[in-house]
Amino acid sequence: MKKITCKGFLLSGVASGLKKNGQKDLGLICSEVTASVAGVFTKNKVQAAPVLVDRKRIKKGFCRAVIINTGSANCCTGDQGIQDALYEAKLAADRLNISEDLVLVASTGVIGKPLAMDKIEFAVPELVKLLSPGGINDFAQAIMTTDTVPKIVSRKGNIGRSGFNITGVAKGAGMICPDMATMLCFVCTDAEASPDFLKQSLASSVEKSFNRITIDGDTSTNDTVIIMANGMSGTSVKSQSEKEYFRRLLDKILMELARKVVKDGEGATKLVEVIVKGAKSVNDAEKIAKTVANSNLVKTALFGEDANWGRILAAAGRAGVVFDPGLVNISFDDVLMVKRGMGCGDAAEKEATKVLKKPEFSITVDLKTGDGKSSVLTCDFSINYVKINADYRS
Amino acid sequence: MKKITCKGFLLSGVASGLKKNGQKDLGLICSEVTASVAGVFTKNKVQAAPVLVDRKRIKKGFCRAVIINTGSANCCTGDQGIQDALYEAKLAADRLNISEDLVLVASTGVIGKPLAMDKIEFAVPELVKLLSPGGINDFAQAIMTTDTVPKIVSRKGNIGRSGFNITGVAKGAGMICPDMATMLCFVCTDAEASPDFLKQSLASSVEKSFNRITIDGDTSTNDTVIIMANGMSGTSVKSQSEKEYFRRLLDKILMELARKVVKDGEGATKLVEVIVKGAKSVNDAEKIAKTVANSNLVKTALFGEDANWGRILAAAGRAGVVFDPGLVNISFDDVLMVKRGMGCGDAAEKEATKVLKKPEFSITVDLKTGDGKSSVLTCDFSINYVKINADYRS
Repeated sequence: MKKITCKGFLLSGVASGLKKNGQKDLGLICSEVTASVAGVFTKNKVQAAPVLVDRKRIKKGFCRAVIINTGSANCCTGDQGIQDALYEAKLAADRLNISEDLVLVASTGVIGKPLAMDKIEFAVPELVKLLSPGGINDFAQAIMTTDTVPKIVSRKGNIGRSGFNITGVAKGAGMICPDMATMLCFVCTDAEASPDFLKQSLASSVEKSFNRITIDGDTSTNDTVIIMANGMSGTSVKSQSEKEYFRRLLDKILMELARKVVKDGEGATKLVEVIVKGAKSVNDAEKIAKTVANSNLVKTALFGEDANWGRILAAAGRAGVVFDPGLVNISFDDVLMVKRGMGCGDAAEKEATKVLKKPEFSITVDLKTGDGKSSVLTCDFSINYVKINADYRS
Repeated sequence: MKKITCKGFLLSGVASGLKKNGQKDLGLICSEVTASVAGVFTKNKVQAAPVLVDRKRIKKGFCRAVIINTGSANCCTGDQGIQDALYEAKLAADRLNISEDLVLVASTGVIGKPLAMDKIEFAVPELVKLLSPGGINDFAQAIMTTDTVPKIVSRKGNIGRSGFNITGVAKGAGMICPDMATMLCFVCTDAEASPDFLKQSLASSVEKSFNRITIDGDTSTNDTVIIMANGMSGTSVKSQSEKEYFRRLLDKILMELARKVVKDGEGATKLVEVIVKGAKSVNDAEKIAKTVANSNLVKTALFGEDANWGRILAAAGRAGVVFDPGLVNISFDDVLMVKRGMGCGDAAEKEATKVLKKPEFSITVDLKTGDGKSSVLTCDFSINYVKINADYRS
């Protein structure tokens, strides 16, 4: 992306020394005018200092900027952590010459490590100086941790004469599990929209996207999704149909970002959609989809490109849902592998194995007992996941 | 072990060709006289054919023998699977010249694969012929799958003049998670005890042992623990104090076997006890202990010998329990690493890292809010776990 398409948003990213390898580690988004804002945060009982700070600040519904650091999650860092988060925001605010109340803050990295405030303090002037629409690429890189690629999705919306734009940037990679899944995601739009509308829309989109993915079943302490709407396109989202249109567009962007997050999951080599249908209720379908999507035995079999459907059925069986295993069908993409609870034989397995060799495919579990349907995006579980996470802090 | 110490029990194990590598794969336990029997089985909604057969048969409270095959779990095998399980028992019964109602059956291996009945049929005569007290070693090997060592625990009980013996044999390795955790465990005793008493004792011991371990969070479809009491020691367990004595001994044996199962978990290099105390209730403590013990991020850090306490606290935070992270202490053995929710610094971390280099240690999470306490045994999550499970069926 050459530059962000949303009018009036400037971004930047610099290397402040928080990452050991000299890569970009500090990012800033700034709206030229005060924007409506809404956020969704982790449901983990252990919450990082920036999450606690943002939860308070976001209540008033307006902001100008968000500063994001990697290298430390600023979590389990006590009162000092709160002071550091506030000071990180203040550093940006002072340099931007705006009220510190209008700056949000997000962190990602190792839990329990204090923020190296000296490095941040030294880097902020440069960070502010570099702000530009083209800075989105540096920004997307600066918020990465074990991500291997930056994640940016942009869409144009057609409302009114001038239309509007929505752009989202996310980071993921590890400690990713439904319940506010991505670690960090920042969405900008130049549409005009109220904080309340943004809040409802964001919650609904997150439920359909980031809360439907898993990489390792671990919910982060720092999960944050923030949306800012500055109205600078001149397009206002007002009528019911305009609101629905905006929501659908936001859904698309967040779903695409969620997909990118899973695809770039730590060590992941496959992107797999686990679809459960024919359940007694949506809730039952969701329980089974999540259990299958989080099963280490299923995920290691996916890595091994092994159509080991027995593990899928065994995982379904421990999801706490009552169903008749003798009715269940399981398909890999459109290859029926299990019919009425039993394997369809060697020919089917040969076809299924072809599907498993693909980088992206779906697993459908049909319980044949009702209309409940749900799905979760997951990835495989590879040797590299273990390598990455055994050595993460060293 | 030279031979089983329980009087009147004969065992054997042979290679019937069910395992590809020519190792022993078919086992038999037989009591010389009819024994009281009780069992605990998987709570997975998907249950293997032998589990369904045993659940019915065990109701009458008596049996003579158990035949166990590896290579196939005989699960998701439909009506044919039930027929095969019944026939497997009948083959043993006929050769032993006893009623087939008195033979139980257990299977472990790949789900969905039909039993190779021809191989079992061919091997049973030899299996019966080899029955002897010294056959326990062959038996323990025959029930192994990805286990690397056989698991036998034996204890002598002192009641009355002649005393009695209890011997347990287990297999574990993968698809191991609380809710009836071990895949297969067979306990013999030459004490005389009623089926009802055995049932209560076994349920209570399993709750303290196999339901307190996890290797990979996946609950098997074939989990089976069976206890047989043939009374041949001449010692009867009758009085309240004798019953309590018997239960304590059974607890010890099952806990030791559970420990062996985790220690030999697929790819495991560490045996770790996760202790949660100071919770508002035992239930809260258990939820947190299980969540920490199953966290892939915690388990990969254990493999990396990294005292990454942030992951422990983050896992605790997603266990669905309300607590104040600012009160929590975390220790590795007796090294205090986290005090009131914050890290204790580099010196503590250096000491904690020494603990993590040990093959066995404990992690204690003290919530400091009540008297609730619980613990779970877990292992680390290694590159070999992924290797073993990516290639399991090939």
